[in-house]
Amino acid sequence: MSLVEKLTSLIGQGKVTVNETILEHHSKDESHFEPVLPDVVVFPASSEDVQKVVLFAKEHKIPVVPFGIGSGLEGHAIPVHRGISIDFSQMNQIIELRPEDLIVKVQPGVTRMQLNQELNKHGLFFPVDPGADATIGGMTATNASGTQAVRYGVMKDQILDLEVVLADGRLIHTGSLAKKSSSGYHLNSLFAGSEGTLGLFTEITLKLHGIPESIMAARACFPTVKHCVEAAVSILTAGIPIARMELVDDRSIAQVNAFSGTSFPEEPSLFLEFHGNDAGNEADAQFVQELLAEQECRSFTFEKDSLKRAQLWKARHDLSYAFRHSNPKLHTINTDVCVPISKLAEMVDYARTRIKAHGLDGAVLGHIGDGNFHTLTLFDPQDPEQLHKIESLNEEIVTFALTLGGTCTGEHGVGLGKMKYQQKEHGEALAVMASIKSLLDPDNILNPGKLLPAQTEMAL
Amino acid sequence: MSLVEKLTSLIGQGKVTVNETILEHHSKDESHFEPVLPDVVVFPASSEDVQKVVLFAKEHKIPVVPFGIGSGLEGHAIPVHRGISIDFSQMNQIIELRPEDLIVKVQPGVTRMQLNQELNKHGLFFPVDPGADATIGGMTATNASGTQAVRYGVMKDQILDLEVVLADGRLIHTGSLAKKSSSGYHLNSLFAGSEGTLGLFTEITLKLHGIPESIMAARACFPTVKHCVEAAVSILTAGIPIARMELVDDRSIAQVNAFSGTSFPEEPSLFLEFHGNDAGNEADAQFVQELLAEQECRSFTFEKDSLKRAQLWKARHDLSYAFRHSNPKLHTINTDVCVPISKLAEMVDYARTRIKAHGLDGAVLGHIGDGNFHTLTLFDPQDPEQLHKIESLNEEIVTFALTLGGTCTGEHGVGLGKMKYQQKEHGEALAVMASIKSLLDPDNILNPGKLLPAQTEMAL
Repeated sequence: MSLVEKLTSLIGQGKVTVNETILEHHSKDESHFEPVLPDVVVFPASSEDVQKVVLFAKEHKIPVVPFGIGSGLEGHAIPVHRGISIDFSQMNQIIELRPEDLIVKVQPGVTRMQLNQELNKHGLFFPVDPGADATIGGMTATNASGTQAVRYGVMKDQILDLEVVLADGRLIHTGSLAKKSSSGYHLNSLFAGSEGTLGLFTEITLKLHGIPESIMAARACFPTVKHCVEAAVSILTAGIPIARMELVDDRSIAQVNAFSGTSFPEEPSLFLEFHGNDAGNEADAQFVQELLAEQECRSFTFEKDSLKRAQLWKARHDLSYAFRHSNPKLHTINTDVCVPISKLAEMVDYARTRIKAHGLDGAVLGHIGDGNFHTLTLFDPQDPEQLHKIESLNEEIVTFALTLGGTCTGEHGVGLGKMKYQQKEHGEALAVMASIKSLLDPDNILNPGKLLPAQTEMAL
Repeated sequence: MSLVEKLTSLIGQGKVTVNETILEHHSKDESHFEPVLPDVVVFPASSEDVQKVVLFAKEHKIPVVPFGIGSGLEGHAIPVHRGISIDFSQMNQIIELRPEDLIVKVQPGVTRMQLNQELNKHGLFFPVDPGADATIGGMTATNASGTQAVRYGVMKDQILDLEVVLADGRLIHTGSLAKKSSSGYHLNSLFAGSEGTLGLFTEITLKLHGIPESIMAARACFPTVKHCVEAAVSILTAGIPIARMELVDDRSIAQVNAFSGTSFPEEPSLFLEFHGNDAGNEADAQFVQELLAEQECRSFTFEKDSLKRAQLWKARHDLSYAFRHSNPKLHTINTDVCVPISKLAEMVDYARTRIKAHGLDGAVLGHIGDGNFHTLTLFDPQDPEQLHKIESLNEEIVTFALTLGGTCTGEHGVGLGKMKYQQKEHGEALAVMASIKSLLDPDNILNPGKLLPAQTEMAL
């Protein structure tokens, strides 16, 4: 029997394919890494299907690579050692919504927009919002965050329970429906962010939030990016519970205006949002305006209208695409370091200087309320010199961030792109991570070649 | 050489003792569990001292039990297999405060009040507030929380980095200074809440918060506890970012009035607090008053004066002591389940019914914004019948909470008291926890006999 026939006999007709187009779709993500075709793509419909596939893979030592919607930025879903790509798009049900508990249980293939559409009917929302309409499974696997993390936390902070299929086919639950717990070891956060290397998620139970009574957005323009960063720091240290605080530099605004048809002033800007009640938001916004004036804020514009507000955040979310699709011949490299807030101005300044020094076309933007920012730099993948330059740039930015006590990735994950920095960032702790991987996946069938650098895996 | 001489030769004079009073002090905590004397108590002054003690313990397979201030409620610090009690009280320095980053790095022996005293000078605070003036090390080990978790999260949510001495003497860092990260496996939350069974903390780096511009407290009285609970649920689902929401029943208020000299009305009450700006708090408080009126709220009293407010929260924090010290012959058993909010009224009702059915004297109080509450029940440890009753009560309450999808411990931890419920709560995941314990502490020298039930340890 062929691989397709064997897998079909296990999980049934119509769930297994070697169709070239589908293999190709599962060979890549949004990163610039070389595509690799999987041997086969399966579309499980249930936890049991996933268990059967994993047990089969374990028996035959075949790699298993989970696939959400392919919006990853570090090559997580690329089956670098081929094997089985498990596509969770058929497991896309909202299993149980408990509005009175502020809890929802979903299958991993549910996307964040699909989820919010349902939640909004009940006056609720889910705050984690990466740029793409990613799946909840993928967002859990990479510990995604986005623009609202500064107020509501990142993906791992929302997780109450995961149903996980382990490498040996066992099904475990890592938490409960309780909002907090001191019972046993906290497995939720060990599996969240594990990028498919420790287990496959088949159910995800999340905390929800009530839509605030009042939401107020604003744009503030500054003479330089450094002014933006210092303004952001002053807002944070004043203890204002800002819900969103995004840096968008002049280059990014130009791109977004061209892509989204907006007409924002092409100046270094902060996009801000306040969540609360009207009176509280008004007071916070006024205080923020005063703080920003001290940072030479040139203009402070409210976007009170909900359509205008939606347009503002859509423009922000589309920014990465705006760059990526600005020239079909060019790729983008998207750095993702996160540093302590007080080092942010220095860090951003360094990144911009290095982009210029390499003669590259790049922008700076990001979730500066968390100390997390991205440089989006365009390059021609056919040009070895440019390729070399952007690799140097990435390395310079990561190295500087680590020197400042930061991390190589604030929200995109390790995947293929950040493996080489794991030893430097984690030191001796990397050996502990590798031993946990070895414990839970001794045959290294779960997304092999990701997260842990090869020498670590070999040293197990 | 004696054990004392050997340890002294390793870490120096004045840090090792077998003084009877000191041994006795390290034989117990605030729980009702039988004290056990350690063989020796050491007072390390540095990470290196801790490493040396652990390496010695590893070589001789001697248990090592961390000790903070002895305020635990589940027997965590009791050296049930004797060995070395490591008292962290000499490692009580605030190593580095970075106000502009909202970050502090402390040694594990720093207490929460000591920390806040320093932070307040900079307009900052640390929100995790268990009843006792516990050490940050102990609070990290049990994943403590308290009255402000509903707004600011629990202990594990505050941790940026831990310096940990592993069972083999290795020193690792589990995080960085970045506020968020998707790099590597999230070891912070694996070690937080591990109760000294996976490693010993020697440095703890925490997120801080700016003291809000305005703090407003209020007391609301209701005809029954059930009304209190339903009122709390209505506040949460309305999306109001309440900073504290405590249930204190009539029995507890009577106790607190007697102990603290207060004169609160002896009715089932909610103690509330709002953090924000004046205008926002006024608006939230007014909305809350309207919501509570629908739950037959009998009185709603603001405590705007900061001294009155401090008195309110001190009374709340002292409640557990008020019971414990009300009669020197009696002990208290303090249950700690946490359930989904919608099940809270049913859960609390069940707990109160069972206390009555056993003919015991008990109260109900807790952090109901998180679905976490405690029953404080008095009993005579010399009376086998009462002892049997309180054990049955605890078991009934835990079993019911687990049926509702909850956890056996919301914040006190497993220790000795909740080991027997681990299998039922975690199922197959308990085997994963046990295998991680076995991986990181193969000789089972780190706080043996805690967290993992004996049969699990044996099955490794």
